Amino acid sequence: MDHSVQLLGISNAIVDILAHVDADFLEQIGAVPGSMTLVDMDRAREIYSQMGPATEMSGGSVANTVAGFANLGGSGAYIGRVKADQLGGIFNHDMRSLGIDVRLDAARDGAPTARSLILITADGQRTMQTYLGACTELGVADITPESVGTPKAMLIEGYVWDLPEGPDLTAKAIKIAKQNGTTVALSLSDSFCVERHRDSFEHAVRNGVDIVVADEDEVNALVGAESFDDALEALDDYDNLFAMTRSDKGSVIVHGDEKIVQPATPVDEVVDTTGAGDAYTAGFLYGWVNDMPLAECAKIGTFCGTTVIQQLGARIEPGLLDHYS
Amino acid sequence: MDHSVQLLGISNAIVDILAHVDADFLEQIGAVPGSMTLVDMDRAREIYSQMGPATEMSGGSVANTVAGFANLGGSGAYIGRVKADQLGGIFNHDMRSLGIDVRLDAARDGAPTARSLILITADGQRTMQTYLGACTELGVADITPESVGTPKAMLIEGYVWDLPEGPDLTAKAIKIAKQNGTTVALSLSDSFCVERHRDSFEHAVRNGVDIVVADEDEVNALVGAESFDDALEALDDYDNLFAMTRSDKGSVIVHGDEKIVQPATPVDEVVDTTGAGDAYTAGFLYGWVNDMPLAECAKIGTFCGTTVIQQLGARIEPGLLDHYS
Repeated sequence: MDHSVQLLGISNAIVDILAHVDADFLEQIGAVPGSMTLVDMDRAREIYSQMGPATEMSGGSVANTVAGFANLGGSGAYIGRVKADQLGGIFNHDMRSLGIDVRLDAARDGAPTARSLILITADGQRTMQTYLGACTELGVADITPESVGTPKAMLIEGYVWDLPEGPDLTAKAIKIAKQNGTTVALSLSDSFCVERHRDSFEHAVRNGVDIVVADEDEVNALVGAESFDDALEALDDYDNLFAMTRSDKGSVIVHGDEKIVQPATPVDEVVDTTGAGDAYTAGFLYGWVNDMPLAECAKIGTFCGTTVIQQLGARIEPGLLDHYS
Repeated sequence: MDHSVQLLGISNAIVDILAHVDADFLEQIGAVPGSMTLVDMDRAREIYSQMGPATEMSGGSVANTVAGFANLGGSGAYIGRVKADQLGGIFNHDMRSLGIDVRLDAARDGAPTARSLILITADGQRTMQTYLGACTELGVADITPESVGTPKAMLIEGYVWDLPEGPDLTAKAIKIAKQNGTTVALSLSDSFCVERHRDSFEHAVRNGVDIVVADEDEVNALVGAESFDDALEALDDYDNLFAMTRSDKGSVIVHGDEKIVQPATPVDEVVDTTGAGDAYTAGFLYGWVNDMPLAECAKIGTFCGTTVIQQLGARIEPGLLDHYS
């Protein structure tokens, strides 16, 4: 089997619209600080009309991971749905410019390209109001043996389960992957997303998913644990490889009897924590597809996550591994 | 006459698309480092397809000045043409969100909204490839007593003369301004632009323009001088107020027999020189419309320009004058 593509991402293709706001603004629009809320187009327009001048850049959790993976030197491919509008053009350009094989053409009709209004408060926290638009029209028909191909690994984000055909299209993608010897990784996205789709995630993790990428809250939500220690105990019952990030407590890798604790790297100044998990995943999977030992995968993941929180912007820049030792 | 709007800008409405490139890239596309080149849509597409991931934000020289002026606390209005596409929506949103009265609705048809591909090399220099799109369709019909209104000052950028109806629409705008007691300011944009339109600029400066904003190269080009000293001598023959920036040599204000030299403020680290001139103009005109002495106008302009070169991004942030003393 040709595994020349190392990582295929399947996720929501989103353009970020970033602006600084004060805390009053969040209260005024009724947003919980630090949360991600799905909104419809009218609500997105209403919030946007009240926001200050913004900066636009390609985003999306697993899309950030695939972009970072490509910038680390990995060979990436991507399935996500944008419309053939200007934001869709920006998204696909940015992915392709990294050498990523964008598998779906921008759609000629349907909802406009997704955007996430990212409201940044003075403490650096980000509150997201996301209009999924064209993403919601990603369907089972988009997932074919041709579009999936035969990558070494496939990474799906939990947010895909929010789409009308999400559960079916991910099941189909996992089935195709299994037929081709592709390793299936699942990013749990956020703990509220896990709550929304717990049974479906549990089923996938028991049936086809090989690697689970999660932060502490997400893994707790998945296994119904109150604490990380309880979660670790519950993982005894799973065969999967779990790569779990714990902010300043570092990361923990569990695979059967194997358990690796990778401490966090002390950081002088945290500029922006956005994308830390996605960058960790990029580094971890970069090590993994290159057959490195798990401890080394965790170390590269930590290096990537640590770098991203010390810069503005969620994506790993090219040449990062030149500074890795 | 109601001068409640203090500054009306008339200029090219452009969304900036910024990406880092290496010097080889500039050579490969045949661009002169640091230059601004006008390109057609095919050429813009071709260069964009070769560029890396980018960040999008509203730009344009005089649009930056009006945005900065509004963030200083001034009352601004704006005339520029965008299409009703996503980039046009971004541009108008960003202007309106600063309280600027955007006088023209986005056009339903015609060329797409203008964009400038801004290629940033490691030395911080910016090379621009600009597709003017919808800007080129700004016409004489867009300039009316209603759209111009009765601002205290009106600022036009030299680049407007590059538009097919540019010379006629600026003549009409200046005529309306004169009837309303509006002071007319002209930004000379860049020295190549001055070379392209020297006679037309000379005519405007002699007939209606009150204030000329320029850097050293631009004023030299306007008066045909080889050096700044020669240019100063040539200015004896003009009645206009000249506000001239000279980078680390500071700025010089000349008005009849009055001459003010404002030294530059030493800067620890220059992050990005883009927008320094536009920010200077915002500060200078903010002082001017508030009837401050010329020396104070120059001091505020210098403060704004100095601040902008120490940050990423060309626009003045809100609250800047809180730090002015």
